[in-house]
Amino acid sequence: MSRLGEFEFIKRLLSPLTRGAPGAYNLSDDAATLAPSHGFELVVTKDAVIEGVHFLASDPPDLIARKALRVNLSDLAAKGAKPVGFFMALMIPEQIDDTWLTLFAAGLGQDIDAFGCPLLGGDTTRTPGPLAISITAMGEVKTGHMTRRNGAMAGDALCVSGTIGDGALGLDVVRGAHGHLVSEHKQFLIDRYRLPQPRLELGQAEVGCDSACIDISDGLCADVGHICEQSGVAAIIESSQIPLSRAGGAVLAQAPSALARILTGGDDYELAFSVPPANVAAAIAHGLKVCVRVTPIGRFTSGQGLTVLDGAGHPVKLSALGFQHR
Amino acid sequence: MSRLGEFEFIKRLLSPLTRGAPGAYNLSDDAATLAPSHGFELVVTKDAVIEGVHFLASDPPDLIARKALRVNLSDLAAKGAKPVGFFMALMIPEQIDDTWLTLFAAGLGQDIDAFGCPLLGGDTTRTPGPLAISITAMGEVKTGHMTRRNGAMAGDALCVSGTIGDGALGLDVVRGAHGHLVSEHKQFLIDRYRLPQPRLELGQAEVGCDSACIDISDGLCADVGHICEQSGVAAIIESSQIPLSRAGGAVLAQAPSALARILTGGDDYELAFSVPPANVAAAIAHGLKVCVRVTPIGRFTSGQGLTVLDGAGHPVKLSALGFQHR
Repeated sequence: MSRLGEFEFIKRLLSPLTRGAPGAYNLSDDAATLAPSHGFELVVTKDAVIEGVHFLASDPPDLIARKALRVNLSDLAAKGAKPVGFFMALMIPEQIDDTWLTLFAAGLGQDIDAFGCPLLGGDTTRTPGPLAISITAMGEVKTGHMTRRNGAMAGDALCVSGTIGDGALGLDVVRGAHGHLVSEHKQFLIDRYRLPQPRLELGQAEVGCDSACIDISDGLCADVGHICEQSGVAAIIESSQIPLSRAGGAVLAQAPSALARILTGGDDYELAFSVPPANVAAAIAHGLKVCVRVTPIGRFTSGQGLTVLDGAGHPVKLSALGFQHR
Repeated sequence: MSRLGEFEFIKRLLSPLTRGAPGAYNLSDDAATLAPSHGFELVVTKDAVIEGVHFLASDPPDLIARKALRVNLSDLAAKGAKPVGFFMALMIPEQIDDTWLTLFAAGLGQDIDAFGCPLLGGDTTRTPGPLAISITAMGEVKTGHMTRRNGAMAGDALCVSGTIGDGALGLDVVRGAHGHLVSEHKQFLIDRYRLPQPRLELGQAEVGCDSACIDISDGLCADVGHICEQSGVAAIIESSQIPLSRAGGAVLAQAPSALARILTGGDDYELAFSVPPANVAAAIAHGLKVCVRVTPIGRFTSGQGLTVLDGAGHPVKLSALGFQHR
């Protein structure tokens, strides 16, 4: 950022991203002010992404920006929150130039508008290390109505949004795997890896209908495991019911071993949620209303731990999936 | 963090740092909930610190933690806000071990209690780069009463808290400079560099008395310049009036050239604020009440830019101070 400099970068590229939000003061002060709407409380989440860990240095700058924001919006989606705005600490290595920063800001602006979530403040600093982006995103829910991880009950159905496994398979494609796929499928999976779809409308639509919710970032098994642990229940996943994209289905048809990746790979940013039996039809209908498929893939039971069943209803050894229960 | 692992680190060392704050859910959920007190709004600030930029790898872990929090609390102090809690993204390199993490969490806990500012949420992740800590701190002010940067008027006095220059001189001592100083002074300056004192009580006490405020992180000249720019005024600093610690005075007595460092060095985390003439006595009295010295060191005038006067009242060339006005 040799030519632009920190202060010009903030003034020219970042302050327009506040979109005039009054409490952001055009990024001209030390801090922002913020209050939830009357009867609402703020939902706050914070996820950092780092070059070489969460994205590749070669990824397009606009997509890096958008993914950094979207992984945070995905947490808000799981909690049933409506986005309010976000704060960003941007740690910039020396080799980043003005073109990169301009594309980065443009990508961010695109998603700020798409999700109604302006930049409210933050910090930019040089780093001798890899590029890192730490975002704190804020949404709001009616006071006391955040969808928690701890509300699943034995007997509830386990539902997921969209299709599962695409994110991890997309990363594999970026790394050169699945060479047999048609290019359309390859591109679909890469897009799913690079640009997750935070299920904000669905998350809000399911408030009061679902009993617990999480977004799938660590992997389907791990994240359903988090609900189990916090809710004090066990879960059964019927692997044959897991919704796959056509591209994901094509991978699995060629390599049945890809099931492990689909179950545990992570980076899906779909929602996994528990739904009382009487609400399952409504949960699916809510999905239709916002154009997101909702699929029941199993159920919660008393006890603890996670069981994955194969197509014949037999338990799959979790260790064979490379899944370590904590 | 090989032995402890991410989830155990969060459970054993971080979740106690929530100090039971209800909206933190013991760090067991994707997000926290938060609302300002009735009649108040949140003040949000975000500052990241990075190894090799803001602290040294050899610095004690507890002090790294405390400084990371304190630089954010210092922003809240400048805005007249009372701390509510904070969110932390911790980017941890491979070589960090459990002992380091334990000391880090202990230091953080000490300041959480000292400043009444619990951990509310965040994120821990591995990094191939240097240790980085991104904190988002939240405080609250009466709605509409955040002390801004843009309220200084021509005729207002320029006041500062505490003593100026110690932070930058302390960093110089760490780097081996000022070998002539007695060890007591060396240690004092190092402590000032490593452990800034966020002037929270003073910032709150001056609300309504000061017209603009900033914390001195970039350096006295730069930060007073920020007030000037946002307020549309000029400022005159009488360098002979700048309050120095005994250690700072000892450095200056030996090396008059240290004045430039004192004026521009940064890392003071004292407050610089504008005070209408009729309020100056009250501003000093507020300082006495919270045991922090408040010193008028100049004044704001119409026009723009910053003038520094020497002891004889002659303007000092700012370029000679290594200060670049933007």
